[in-house]
Amino acid sequence: MYIRIINNVKRFIELDGEELNFFTSLLSTRKYKRKEMLLRNGEVSKYELFIINGCVKNYTIDNNGFEHISMFAIEDWWTGDIASFVTRTPTVFNIEALEDTEVLQISKSDLELLLDKIPKFEKFFRILYQRSLTTYIERNNQNISFTAEQRYLTFIKKYPKFELRISQKNIASYLGITPEFLSVLRKKLNS
Amino acid sequence: MYIRIINNVKRFIELDGEELNFFTSLLSTRKYKRKEMLLRNGEVSKYELFIINGCVKNYTIDNNGFEHISMFAIEDWWTGDIASFVTRTPTVFNIEALEDTEVLQISKSDLELLLDKIPKFEKFFRILYQRSLTTYIERNNQNISFTAEQRYLTFIKKYPKFELRISQKNIASYLGITPEFLSVLRKKLNS
Repeated sequence: MYIRIINNVKRFIELDGEELNFFTSLLSTRKYKRKEMLLRNGEVSKYELFIINGCVKNYTIDNNGFEHISMFAIEDWWTGDIASFVTRTPTVFNIEALEDTEVLQISKSDLELLLDKIPKFEKFFRILYQRSLTTYIERNNQNISFTAEQRYLTFIKKYPKFELRISQKNIASYLGITPEFLSVLRKKLNS
Repeated sequence: MYIRIINNVKRFIELDGEELNFFTSLLSTRKYKRKEMLLRNGEVSKYELFIINGCVKNYTIDNNGFEHISMFAIEDWWTGDIASFVTRTPTVFNIEALEDTEVLQISKSDLELLLDKIPKFEKFFRILYQRSLTTYIERNNQNISFTAEQRYLTFIKKYPKFELRISQKNIASYLGITPEFLSVLRKKLNS
């Protein structure tokens, strides 16, 4: 159960057996069925989540009822809503399982305990947030300056696995276009 | 010269005199005139920058020559391009001084030395990146789901100082609208 998260952490820091045991003792596991909600708009995000298997989408709903997908996450990815988690304020996001999904989760108080007891985790989360920041800066720039075709090409190049697992409707929402326009784009690029 | 950056760091970690001296010994200062470039598309971002005074914009130019502003930064803010800085690859961004601007800068090798010698800085940068990540997640969500009016209202509420210092042309570019439409929005909201 812990193999994936241990390998994930070991990318950036080295830990001995005792440290690993302490780390995993702070984690709890939770399973969600496809279409089940991991987090709802208005709730406080109580956990940082690491996906062991499955796939989720992180999205908001605008005033007109339209869904806008910020990010997908699959196994080996961390997800949640960092703003709500850190400040203990209600989230604007929803997280929904797109497949049956199993996560490991850590609470805010346990994460603080971990950082306090094993300061090496400061380095782990510094690098994790640095990488996540890079991804969001890139995505933000693409949203404000790329055409839909450029966004689609970048998406399938960066996340080749996603196209096989995620519906065209959800990919279109992530790209900020209609499913019909995504279908036109795909036909154009395949011909 | 170092008061602002020391206060900035002390928000999250405590440092003694020797640690502060080591930290500041790794910084160099640089001044830019208004309209001067701090970083150009295609260069490798060699430094993380801390603004002592002044104001800059971070932007890209699309294939049609249009400018898209990702972020502004004023005194007490960190800026640069973290992706280019970390991976030593050419940046897609440009950073331009909107006012005469003075920065303190730290190179990648000196930042690595700092993190190695004073691991408390892992915590500082963990929290700094966490906050920056929160800002970009929020901005990304607003770009994909907010109307122009909602984006403008959020911007002036979150950054009240910016409207006084930054031209309407630049604010419009940040909001993803034309200066003419921003003028219409402002008249509507002021009436």
